[in-house]
Amino acid sequence: MNNKFQIVAIIGRPNGVALAEPVRALHRLLLARGVRVHTDPRVAELLERTPDQVLPMEALIASADLAIAVGGDGTLLGVARIAAAAKVPIVGVNLGTLGFLTDIPKDEMETLVSALLDGRYTEEARLMLDGEVRRGAETIFKSVAFNDVVVSRGAMGTMIEFAVEVDGEFIYSLRADGLIIATPTGSTAYALSSGGPILQPGLAAMALVPISPHTLSNRPIAIRSNSEVRVKLISGANARVNFDVQAFFDPRTDDEVIIRAHPNPLRLLHPMGYSYFGMLRTKLHWNERTS
Amino acid sequence: MNNKFQIVAIIGRPNGVALAEPVRALHRLLLARGVRVHTDPRVAELLERTPDQVLPMEALIASADLAIAVGGDGTLLGVARIAAAAKVPIVGVNLGTLGFLTDIPKDEMETLVSALLDGRYTEEARLMLDGEVRRGAETIFKSVAFNDVVVSRGAMGTMIEFAVEVDGEFIYSLRADGLIIATPTGSTAYALSSGGPILQPGLAAMALVPISPHTLSNRPIAIRSNSEVRVKLISGANARVNFDVQAFFDPRTDDEVIIRAHPNPLRLLHPMGYSYFGMLRTKLHWNERTS
Amino acid sequence: MNNKFQIVAIIGRPNGVALAEPVRALHRLLLARGVRVHTDPRVAELLERTPDQVLPMEALIASADLAIAVGGDGTLLGVARIAAAAKVPIVGVNLGTLGFLTDIPKDEMETLVSALLDGRYTEEARLMLDGEVRRGAETIFKSVAFNDVVVSRGAMGTMIEFAVEVDGEFIYSLRADGLIIATPTGSTAYALSSGGPILQPGLAAMALVPISPHTLSNRPIAIRSNSEVRVKLISGANARVNFDVQAFFDPRTDDEVIIRAHPNPLRLLHPMGYSYFGMLRTKLHWNERTS
Amino acid sequence: MNNKFQIVAIIGRPNGVALAEPVRALHRLLLARGVRVHTDPRVAELLERTPDQVLPMEALIASADLAIAVGGDGTLLGVARIAAAAKVPIVGVNLGTLGFLTDIPKDEMETLVSALLDGRYTEEARLMLDGEVRRGAETIFKSVAFNDVVVSRGAMGTMIEFAVEVDGEFIYSLRADGLIIATPTGSTAYALSSGGPILQPGLAAMALVPISPHTLSNRPIAIRSNSEVRVKLISGANARVNFDVQAFFDPRTDDEVIIRAHPNPLRLLHPMGYSYFGMLRTKLHWNERTS
Repeated sequence: MNNKFQIVAIIGRPNGVALAEPVRALHRLLLARGVRVHTDPRVAELLERTPDQVLPMEALIASADLAIAVGGDGTLLGVARIAAAAKVPIVGVNLGTLGFLTDIPKDEMETLVSALLDGRYTEEARLMLDGEVRRGAETIFKSVAFNDVVVSRGAMGTMIEFAVEVDGEFIYSLRADGLIIATPTGSTAYALSSGGPILQPGLAAMALVPISPHTLSNRPIAIRSNSEVRVKLISGANARVNFDVQAFFDPRTDDEVIIRAHPNPLRLLHPMGYSYFGMLRTKLHWNERTS
Repeated sequence: MNNKFQIVAIIGRPNGVALAEPVRALHRLLLARGVRVHTDPRVAELLERTPDQVLPMEALIASADLAIAVGGDGTLLGVARIAAAAKVPIVGVNLGTLGFLTDIPKDEMETLVSALLDGRYTEEARLMLDGEVRRGAETIFKSVAFNDVVVSRGAMGTMIEFAVEVDGEFIYSLRADGLIIATPTGSTAYALSSGGPILQPGLAAMALVPISPHTLSNRPIAIRSNSEVRVKLISGANARVNFDVQAFFDPRTDDEVIIRAHPNPLRLLHPMGYSYFGMLRTKLHWNERTS
Repeated sequence: MNNKFQIVAIIGRPNGVALAEPVRALHRLLLARGVRVHTDPRVAELLERTPDQVLPMEALIASADLAIAVGGDGTLLGVARIAAAAKVPIVGVNLGTLGFLTDIPKDEMETLVSALLDGRYTEEARLMLDGEVRRGAETIFKSVAFNDVVVSRGAMGTMIEFAVEVDGEFIYSLRADGLIIATPTGSTAYALSSGGPILQPGLAAMALVPISPHTLSNRPIAIRSNSEVRVKLISGANARVNFDVQAFFDPRTDDEVIIRAHPNPLRLLHPMGYSYFGMLRTKLHWNERTS
Repeated sequence: MNNKFQIVAIIGRPNGVALAEPVRALHRLLLARGVRVHTDPRVAELLERTPDQVLPMEALIASADLAIAVGGDGTLLGVARIAAAAKVPIVGVNLGTLGFLTDIPKDEMETLVSALLDGRYTEEARLMLDGEVRRGAETIFKSVAFNDVVVSRGAMGTMIEFAVEVDGEFIYSLRADGLIIATPTGSTAYALSSGGPILQPGLAAMALVPISPHTLSNRPIAIRSNSEVRVKLISGANARVNFDVQAFFDPRTDDEVIIRAHPNPLRLLHPMGYSYFGMLRTKLHWNERTS
């Protein structure tokens, strides 16, 4: 059989969800197609047969032509930065409800993964963000985000104060619970709950979304994705920088958080017929009426 | 001279602001009127003459016929629960910009405080909230709020999940950054930044304002002030209950936060001619136009 | 049989919906209970037997001990002002989806109407609004609203400008698409779409909700229901006052719209077990999650 | 003198504002620089000397190397479509308060216009929108917008219903007061009042902003500026399409409004040192604090 992808990494988070059955089914399908299968040690334990290679996560994804994340949006989100760095395309199988990112329902996994191997899919390039924290001239923390970088108050419950620059131009200083710098992907996550706009995935933009801003006219701003955003903490006994709720750092007064586009977008695959807005209609109940 | 108030407590927070000069001027004015003056030890140090009594804060306010808070809204907010418990009326002098609560500008302090002593003022009864945290049958924390009780995420940056009941009726369960239960006074503070409505001070209501709710249709709700609100933490490794950002407690899963009206409203005095909406127009720039 | 209500008015709007079958079923049920049935001429035509009396709408409702509106929220809304004026209680049967006002599903009509006749129901007093338009000293238009009085731009697409007073106190002047003055009932209708708060039905309040206000800090305000609101048109070549989208008037510059509580609230009945917030959860999808 | 622009069109709307004095001053300045001055007949009447040419508006702008709009944002907005079609750069002098578009204060007109003629300015390309209304296969109306195309209810006060497609993909159908399709320029106008995001002028995007949407989860969406948007009227006894509140058409059910980028962006000039966000800070009071 002629496969578009020769080596597939199966990604899963074995945390109580019934992961064993779907990864076994996926494994059988891939073997039947003559595809080599790589996994990490925890997924390997769930399989009936030893996979072709067992590797730690970063090496695992780098070794593959395609990564299939089985679980939910969180599973895919958890490895997005690795897949982007390795330029390996990724696709998601959701085991529960439809995800914003994981399009392939478990029930259609065999059909749709077969179609992927046949080359029937669409590929999207999704913006990722590089963030770093600078103290004076020194970079003291770095990470990557797929959804958002969030500079926000910590536990104390008091507002933080910060100044925002875009490409060296001062935008505003603000007292607020925080500021979300969101990719188009992240625009339907935390940023949406905080009043931000939905950014079409193909729009080369990021959104600056203040969280509970003290100044009521401080509305969300969409800027070019090739911008450099600087958030300087003016009063920050109580601040935190969060990357996709996966990595964080507690900056202090005068630290600067610098955010710009990651050089590699994430290569996100979808089954044929995928509709971004169709997914949103389902997730956000746009089809339904309240009277 | 015939004074409406015989004993006045001067309240101030001596933290670097130029408090000495205005409290001395106030002291002189009160002495000239034949009013007895009580202060706490720190304000006493600022005065030119020893006041009639020096007492710790709770005893100080309880000892007076009127408390005058000199500083800003924070100064008044910091003693509101004590004044409400003692049923002692309070009025605020602002040393900087006009406050939401502190109406008497420093420049008009002498005129307007004299008018107060003459009995020329209006009195408002402002709702206060009693809150407690229950673990099973036991009350493990209690406090009072003038602005708001806030149940929110702590430092971890993940949403919390909670269920809300009003008078025993289930309202919703919600994943969000938190929930603000605000008095009319607090409706122009944090709740307003989070999208809540302004509640006219005389309206017997509180507002339930979700902070960055995951469900986009979860809008602020105004309920009767004689309601009992229960917020039960469903998932709360990371939660905090905050009272006016003055007192807090970290509840855990299954703890319940119970909020109801405090038996004594705060007796807030204003100079004659005070206009609540006039103050709001100034604070919120309603007078001004953007084009 | 001992009936709580001796004379029932059946209300329906025979406009293409399959109204005949449910009103016939209702008629049979009421006859079997020994209740006298009154209708208007159009509903009378749908019945198998002539009702006890056939009357025009106002006389019809005034003649009854209970009005049952069969259709949807619009059917009930259309007669609310008449029922309030006549102090006749009303209950709604919805033929389609659950309504904000019409609680009795068609499938449970027989059981729940029987229960009503037995006296098993709850009664709510719902605020109605009186509105009038004044030109100088003269009242040139009057109407009543159950949901809202809306002062808004007409067709021209330009903002209108108006000044708002509450109980003689100036609140703000505003350029906007309009202003909604909503009852608690109306707070989940147009006002909610325009960013207003939900007002618990028992809260003695109305909401002032600006529509697309030019000044971004002009947020919704909840005020006491015994307030008098005045909206004076400052620039109004293009304005309209709308009552529940049932009656309207086109005011001109300097006309004033005056809104206050109607002396009679609407007596709205619900089946036992009715939960206002349960209804809202269903209508607003609060039960559901987007991920 | 070496001038960057040889022929300048002076644009003004002589409607009661004190236009004569500033256009005379501008005329003198341009003559002193040896620049040829063209105006329309109404501005010509205000001048002390006959301008070099007097032409109707379209020919006037087409005849010039630079158009200077003297007045306010409305003056510039009124000729933007003509300037874009003619590819003639435009700059604005504001006679009152700072405009979103008109950067040159009257007091600095002589200095800053001189600098423009010296070639000291920055040029921005601002997106314009082409809109047309189709009835079946036929185009029955066309116009151009600089701020926004607005499909909205007319005078009747009832919601309209419409379906939205982007590049042939169905987005949603919606009942609402309307839908704003805004350029980055328009994102700070009506769209901002309706809850839309601010789009940085250089972002190649438009915003779809629902006005008072019935479905609460229908949030603003930012899409690529090279998209084709189709808005099909589903129920429209009462609809209007409005272009910058300068031109309008009343579509009927099943008519489609098609919006896409105009081939020529507007060439908008600014004095050196212009800061878009600096202007926003002033216009939206971001500098100021409410406590």
